[in-house]
Amino acid sequence: MELGTYLHDKRIIVENSLKDVFSSFKNTPGILRDAMEYMLFSNGKRIRPILAIAACEANKKPSDDLLPLACSIEMIHTYSLIHDDLPSIDNDDIRRGRPTCHKVFGDAVAILAGDALLTEAFRILSDNRYTENISPRTLKKIIFEIASAAGADGMVGGQVMDILYDGKEGTKNILNYIHLHKTTALIRASVRVGAIAGGSRASELKRFTKYAECIGLAFQIMDDILDAEGDEELVGKRLKKDTGKQTYIKHYGIVTSKIKLEQLIDEAIGSIESLGDRAKILSDLARYLGNRAT
Amino acid sequence: MELGTYLHDKRIIVENSLKDVFSSFKNTPGILRDAMEYMLFSNGKRIRPILAIAACEANKKPSDDLLPLACSIEMIHTYSLIHDDLPSIDNDDIRRGRPTCHKVFGDAVAILAGDALLTEAFRILSDNRYTENISPRTLKKIIFEIASAAGADGMVGGQVMDILYDGKEGTKNILNYIHLHKTTALIRASVRVGAIAGGSRASELKRFTKYAECIGLAFQIMDDILDAEGDEELVGKRLKKDTGKQTYIKHYGIVTSKIKLEQLIDEAIGSIESLGDRAKILSDLARYLGNRAT
Repeated sequence: MELGTYLHDKRIIVENSLKDVFSSFKNTPGILRDAMEYMLFSNGKRIRPILAIAACEANKKPSDDLLPLACSIEMIHTYSLIHDDLPSIDNDDIRRGRPTCHKVFGDAVAILAGDALLTEAFRILSDNRYTENISPRTLKKIIFEIASAAGADGMVGGQVMDILYDGKEGTKNILNYIHLHKTTALIRASVRVGAIAGGSRASELKRFTKYAECIGLAFQIMDDILDAEGDEELVGKRLKKDTGKQTYIKHYGIVTSKIKLEQLIDEAIGSIESLGDRAKILSDLARYLGNRAT
Repeated sequence: MELGTYLHDKRIIVENSLKDVFSSFKNTPGILRDAMEYMLFSNGKRIRPILAIAACEANKKPSDDLLPLACSIEMIHTYSLIHDDLPSIDNDDIRRGRPTCHKVFGDAVAILAGDALLTEAFRILSDNRYTENISPRTLKKIIFEIASAAGADGMVGGQVMDILYDGKEGTKNILNYIHLHKTTALIRASVRVGAIAGGSRASELKRFTKYAECIGLAFQIMDDILDAEGDEELVGKRLKKDTGKQTYIKHYGIVTSKIKLEQLIDEAIGSIESLGDRAKILSDLARYLGNRAT
């Protein structure tokens, strides 16, 4: 299948699954639900759930049972955007071409909407309505995978270092810590969750993991490049804001960053080559992520 | 056993278990770990984990395997305090007799420390290091119980209504929604998690649940009474701050609130009477919570 069609189809499937999940909120205050939905249904690329689905399908396993789990990852990603945009963190007022969550609902509701999205992600992962076809043992592995990637030794740790070293000299080691934790950790978990749900054995899981680590880092380098050179309208957020941040551009320059990006995409594709035809979508996805303009 | 001794002993056990959990953070940025620990080890009463332990032990089952799960509830409670105290939410500067988390570490780190505590709670619930003696099926139930209580239809929903109706007229229905969600939900989950881990059958679980709902509501009414009449030094936070909030005192007056509190404690004790001697600690705990000064 051509990647464009695949992305389009899967995006619709993910959106519908997210809507289905939201229909299970019965007693949620209206403004809280609105704030969660505002950010969750705001033209996101759905890269993480689609990676999970593609990794599952690369095992020749249908991804229907995985869908709510993939949605829970998207909810965690969304909460992290809401909190990152807050005035006391990155202070961003535009995201995906619209005012950020706190600009519309106020800081308090934005903080709580993020908290709710994060918590509800784990509710969905453990809710029989959505997970009855996945064994509790596999589910436990998946919850551990996601929580570890999103927590203090994962995404949140990366975000803390990101703000701590904003405006500071920094080192390549610091940059590496930030990129591996802030962005790569959850992308890595997305692919691994898909592979685990798809039934990958240890040796294959290793290949998927290597692939995910390469595209995760490439994704963040591309973000750094887009911040320096991208089109604000296409990207949908304010650019050239990261001048004080630890970026690849700052530590390696734009030319070397682009070379590193190419290398990572090649490495990602190489690491799943042995899967043969089964790897086609994932390989195409890697190339797409290395060339994206949004 | 006398309740004072029981509380003292269990508190030490919970503290040690929390310290053990924290030893598993290896790559966490120092300031993030410090902020999490600052609030987590700040002279909390540990009511929620102790309720879980007591409900488990009321089933004549040892609570060792439950301990890390009980700690995860305390971590969720702690994250909620950190976020509630933020300037854009309740704007509190003193908690448990010390400056609040954001006063010491800044708003950004406080938000992220809360996020990390919430996420790590679910990591612990799914981490084989801490949960290998609990069946994945039971664990799934427990994770669902905790996530549902803490999420959009639980604690976070209650908190949103609490700030939404701050300074507004409100109704008894609104007050009821806030108290049942903001405070009762997680206390209810604590007791239920303990009972589930202890192997309670459906009919007994119902009794534990009724008990928990009564003491949860009583706990919040006591909070309202302490805010109106308590000793700031003993309570460890600024009082008489809730004048604009939806409180029992506002809607029922102090005398009726105290009567309601007594009734709830009696109802809590009555609902577990059929357990006989096994209910002693839980009954004593209910009485203690209805008379606390801190």
